[in-house]
Amino acid sequence: MTARVNRQILLQSRPEGPPGLENFELVERPMPDPGEGEVLMRILYLSLDPYMRGRMSAAKSYAKPAAVGEPMVGGTVGEIVKSRNPKYAVGDVVLGFGGWQEYALSSGAGLRKLDPKAAPISTALGVLGMPGMTAYVGLLEIGQPKPGETVVVAAASGAVGSVVGQIAKIKGARAVGIAGGAEKCRFVAEELGFDDCVDHRAPDFAQRLAAACPNGIDVYFENVGGAVQHTVWPLLNDFARIPVCGVIAQYSATSEMPGPDIVSVLRKRLLLRGFIVSDFAAKQPDFLRDAAEWVRSGRLKYREDIADGLERAPASFLGLLQGKNFGKMLVRVASA
Amino acid sequence: MTARVNRQILLQSRPEGPPGLENFELVERPMPDPGEGEVLMRILYLSLDPYMRGRMSAAKSYAKPAAVGEPMVGGTVGEIVKSRNPKYAVGDVVLGFGGWQEYALSSGAGLRKLDPKAAPISTALGVLGMPGMTAYVGLLEIGQPKPGETVVVAAASGAVGSVVGQIAKIKGARAVGIAGGAEKCRFVAEELGFDDCVDHRAPDFAQRLAAACPNGIDVYFENVGGAVQHTVWPLLNDFARIPVCGVIAQYSATSEMPGPDIVSVLRKRLLLRGFIVSDFAAKQPDFLRDAAEWVRSGRLKYREDIADGLERAPASFLGLLQGKNFGKMLVRVASA
Repeated sequence: MTARVNRQILLQSRPEGPPGLENFELVERPMPDPGEGEVLMRILYLSLDPYMRGRMSAAKSYAKPAAVGEPMVGGTVGEIVKSRNPKYAVGDVVLGFGGWQEYALSSGAGLRKLDPKAAPISTALGVLGMPGMTAYVGLLEIGQPKPGETVVVAAASGAVGSVVGQIAKIKGARAVGIAGGAEKCRFVAEELGFDDCVDHRAPDFAQRLAAACPNGIDVYFENVGGAVQHTVWPLLNDFARIPVCGVIAQYSATSEMPGPDIVSVLRKRLLLRGFIVSDFAAKQPDFLRDAAEWVRSGRLKYREDIADGLERAPASFLGLLQGKNFGKMLVRVASA
Repeated sequence: MTARVNRQILLQSRPEGPPGLENFELVERPMPDPGEGEVLMRILYLSLDPYMRGRMSAAKSYAKPAAVGEPMVGGTVGEIVKSRNPKYAVGDVVLGFGGWQEYALSSGAGLRKLDPKAAPISTALGVLGMPGMTAYVGLLEIGQPKPGETVVVAAASGAVGSVVGQIAKIKGARAVGIAGGAEKCRFVAEELGFDDCVDHRAPDFAQRLAAACPNGIDVYFENVGGAVQHTVWPLLNDFARIPVCGVIAQYSATSEMPGPDIVSVLRKRLLLRGFIVSDFAAKQPDFLRDAAEWVRSGRLKYREDIADGLERAPASFLGLLQGKNFGKMLVRVASA
């Protein structure tokens, strides 16, 4: 039996600059009923990801903005509680895009059944999901690290960064993380096995980063932009590759921040390339095969930061934008 | 018989900011004599190119700086007037790197014999030489224009830009030039056959450029940087490619200029790649074959801006940096 109401978190207004709790609204709506061909999912986990900041804005981007007055969009893992779609049975656990709510309808399009015995279902939103695949394609298709090269990744304890560095290691490169605070840096170096991790809050960050990269930087996986980017830039080697995956430090800037020095792009023959994971959709089978194997064999570790209850999604998301999370940020909307 | 003295133009000092005549010095030196295995070239044409601004600086770059007190470096076409190298005979016309002087010694390494009947010898420094090949590899290897796409190139009447747009047309793309002044724009559109050319000095440059690119910009061949780059940027389409060939507007900046907006690199999935022609040395046979054929068949036109006499090299070079040249800048050091 399902509840009578569906709690949702709506995009209440679009932020100018850093978003706040006032941009979200928790509402109770009548429980929807699946039409012909549809399923009703009870959401177990909601993924919180930096890209959602873009959806809050009306600015033109690679995806349509979320609509004001509608539930915020987001990836989810849920179980089917009602089905009028022959492909899905009650009890199936599915990866989908249910959004910030407790229940969601789906036509079935874009759903993927999960095997709860193969891996914890939450990993479909993290190390074995979109963030993991983002790391995989950005590093391997654009960064293309060679054995012995140095790969630097910011937000190194996060959902994407943690995977970038570990795959760099698997491929024989030197992995140097950048993270905020001693605890995260310790985790990245000691638990994830990066060669080093540098705290970007340290007053001597630039010197520490240079010391951690004695042979310069061959791949800079860009997750953050801003001041970290400008600190990394002078350390780039000739022919360095910079997959541009995110610039979380700049999403809420109200004016354009200075971009990377173009003279060095020329002199050092740098390659910068922006991408989103769906640009490399054809690589999904490779990713799922490799990542599942690496997780099974213990070569690819992950950490989750789980907030309990849908109502905690807005504050958890705002914390994510400020780097307050520690690992892949998830909301446990309900227990299986 | 050769002269007794060799006039040379030395790099007298390194400029801070825009270079001036005071950075150069014209001197007379004794005529050198080739040692065993060497040849003496009488220089006929000296090429003046924007990259030479980089050689005047001590800043780390892809090539060593020119030495203060030594002749400025530069590509040359000359004739062999003395030879102690069995591969070269007196009278041979050769492409080489003789520098800013009337005579130059060479070991023969890096020389290439030219056939004066195949094409005017000066073209080995322009449309059939380094600038032409720079356009060819940057556009085709990095820009990769598809038929119907829009290619924008700045400095469109110059040695590189003029070739970029014409090859874009040959490949079925729409070519839009940017040049300084009505006369150059007329030449680019009417003589070279670009679809349009926009004067960057016009007060409504941004609007005119947008009007000339109704379908946005798919390839921006970056020759100039600075304000032109920032005007082009908002017009870039998703997945646009930006070969970064030069940033002549920024070479003499004494402080770093703001780079291109990184948020749009991500949102539009842009590709930026710095390059120099020698990164694609393996493409030289393809280039020489294609470009020679295009020149012969009239599909690839060129214009030269020739200053007579070595002593005019410094002023001509300073003019080049300010866009005062009209076509490939050459100095006729001597007549054949």
